[in-house]
Amino acid sequence: MEFSVGHHDGGTQARVGSLRTVHGQVETPSFMPVGTLGPVKGIDPIDLEQLGFRLVLNNAYHLYLRPGHKVVAELGGLHRFTGWPGAILTDSGGFQIFSLAKLCTITDDGVSFQSHLDGSTHFITPETAIEIQEALGADIIMAFDQCVALPASHDQMREGVRRTKLWAQRCQESRRRTDQALFGIVQGGLDPDLRVTAARDLIGLGFDGYAIGGLSVGEAKAEMYGMLDVTVPELPEAKPRYLMGVGMPEDLIEGVARGIDLFDCVVPSRHGRTGSLFTSFGRVVIKQAKYLHDEQPVDPRCGCPVCARYSRAYLHHLFNVKEMLGARLNTIHNLWYFADLMRQVRSAVAQGMLKEFREEFYTSRDRAAGDRADAVSAADDHRRQPGD
Amino acid sequence: MEFSVGHHDGGTQARVGSLRTVHGQVETPSFMPVGTLGPVKGIDPIDLEQLGFRLVLNNAYHLYLRPGHKVVAELGGLHRFTGWPGAILTDSGGFQIFSLAKLCTITDDGVSFQSHLDGSTHFITPETAIEIQEALGADIIMAFDQCVALPASHDQMREGVRRTKLWAQRCQESRRRTDQALFGIVQGGLDPDLRVTAARDLIGLGFDGYAIGGLSVGEAKAEMYGMLDVTVPELPEAKPRYLMGVGMPEDLIEGVARGIDLFDCVVPSRHGRTGSLFTSFGRVVIKQAKYLHDEQPVDPRCGCPVCARYSRAYLHHLFNVKEMLGARLNTIHNLWYFADLMRQVRSAVAQGMLKEFREEFYTSRDRAAGDRADAVSAADDHRRQPGD
Repeated sequence: MEFSVGHHDGGTQARVGSLRTVHGQVETPSFMPVGTLGPVKGIDPIDLEQLGFRLVLNNAYHLYLRPGHKVVAELGGLHRFTGWPGAILTDSGGFQIFSLAKLCTITDDGVSFQSHLDGSTHFITPETAIEIQEALGADIIMAFDQCVALPASHDQMREGVRRTKLWAQRCQESRRRTDQALFGIVQGGLDPDLRVTAARDLIGLGFDGYAIGGLSVGEAKAEMYGMLDVTVPELPEAKPRYLMGVGMPEDLIEGVARGIDLFDCVVPSRHGRTGSLFTSFGRVVIKQAKYLHDEQPVDPRCGCPVCARYSRAYLHHLFNVKEMLGARLNTIHNLWYFADLMRQVRSAVAQGMLKEFREEFYTSRDRAAGDRADAVSAADDHRRQPGD
Repeated sequence: MEFSVGHHDGGTQARVGSLRTVHGQVETPSFMPVGTLGPVKGIDPIDLEQLGFRLVLNNAYHLYLRPGHKVVAELGGLHRFTGWPGAILTDSGGFQIFSLAKLCTITDDGVSFQSHLDGSTHFITPETAIEIQEALGADIIMAFDQCVALPASHDQMREGVRRTKLWAQRCQESRRRTDQALFGIVQGGLDPDLRVTAARDLIGLGFDGYAIGGLSVGEAKAEMYGMLDVTVPELPEAKPRYLMGVGMPEDLIEGVARGIDLFDCVVPSRHGRTGSLFTSFGRVVIKQAKYLHDEQPVDPRCGCPVCARYSRAYLHHLFNVKEMLGARLNTIHNLWYFADLMRQVRSAVAQGMLKEFREEFYTSRDRAAGDRADAVSAADDHRRQPGD
């Protein structure tokens, strides 16, 4: 993998760049849709390509349990298995184990846990996390980290940072494949000093890219943004920076403004399935009765294939009768919104106009919200999810 | 609508023809996928076009209940509402009312029943059935008929035929739109004399096409084929003939051989969702454990977009983890199988080779079944379903 930074915004910490992988080039800043078990739920790879995505995330934990990383390896790896020709990033499974699995026991050696599916017992170490991800065969793999649940004591957070460093080193030492990029993950909760320590620890080990983990887990947005303000300046300019499990549209803009290059989140697909549609004027909750007769597209200003073909009334009907196609169409609309937002963000950064873009984003949404008594709050709670 | 018959097979009663509608031309014999509530479950209109379908069926009963025929009319009719640019046929709702609704009371006036969804009371007459279908705006609409459940006494079946004729006439008299074709439905259960009487009754009234209803409801295949042998010769050569709710691949071939032009059935989509995949060598039940490692496509001889991109192992995984995309991909494969079968059937008829085609169809499937201990019986039970 090669990463090159192009323009800097100037007014913010934002930059545009380009990730070259064996499976194609990814313009950054970029948002990765989440295909927990292979596909983004209900979505074909060909849809993702047409929407403009070039990099998706798959969850190592879920694929380790089903169908098993060895099965995927036998079948030629994730790209061939899932039919996705673009680039893939796998997370290491740490966050999922701590979020989903039962009876976790963490030692310096690794984590023992019971599967959330059948209660079977597993033991994952930094070495096995790498082995699993090498078998899955993504373009970018992640170091095995300990994501401490918030709120946590200072001691717990410090212990998480210490263990994450230890594990990061063991991940590096156990690598066999040279054709995958390996990213380290900066932990440290909401403690600025710990974040800086964690970042410096990892940089000392030398990774192909750096992720910021342990955020979007229930803290206030201001706290999350504050951690970015502290952490990102520590990270090397020449390496990609990835904010894990984030986020809402405003989080992407705020993250980019603070120098983040990559994001992933289940929001477009999960909100799509539950009928919450992103638009230039805020959120459309498609189940609302007022859409029964509404022949407008979801967002008249949207260029997605769903808005080109279907009315709010039809999407309302599909949601109302629980038709599978409704989940699919809503997800496609939301994915397009996220892909298009990132295209606009990249363009704004390239022109040195991200501040203006951010201002216009909030203004236009707030103005619309003022016009619409039913508008969903722009600041609704969202937490990182361990898969979709 | 205009219908023209092209070639006759010669060796059988089969013929190829062409239905011209405002929404495009349909080559016959043709199979209609079923979009109960608008879409074929999980499938975009663009998928259906790419698979080669030009005519789909929508269920008037289901759309009458949700979102309501008046809502669909306000929104420009079914084509605009569902985004399907091809031709549409709506059934009249009779079969669904008798199959799904509660507390049906049938008089010569009409049928009162309770919705299967919320128990609300409704009264449908031949006149309202036409009003509903004119509001929905399909290219082809169906007369309101009484489908007598089998087994039934001779008196019950005769009464059904009498009432169906009475209702057929009232359907004709209440029509307002001249841009929709109206088909009559031949009932008569498994009684050859009643079938002949019913056919002659309807022909006397003069319809744009003739359907054969009340079959594929649990009778033996030989009984169904026997009723076609008796009924089809009564029907006018120059009008399309539609066998309702049928069927399995062999039923399509046997129907065509007996002079049928149109079919509809939920089989490709319902079997797809439950993981039963049609192939040139019989059925693949994708949940079977032996497919976990199988990197072949579902059918190596299949030209569908699913077989081009995905392995049995991936479809097995998607089914196993209950991923929505699995239902979609399985349905696309099955729909392609049905579309392709009908293309082959039309080609065989055009060349006067349907007998040979039929023989080869059974031989190749039986040979494959002999080779595969797990092959699903070719004769497994299938009954017409009141929607999908």
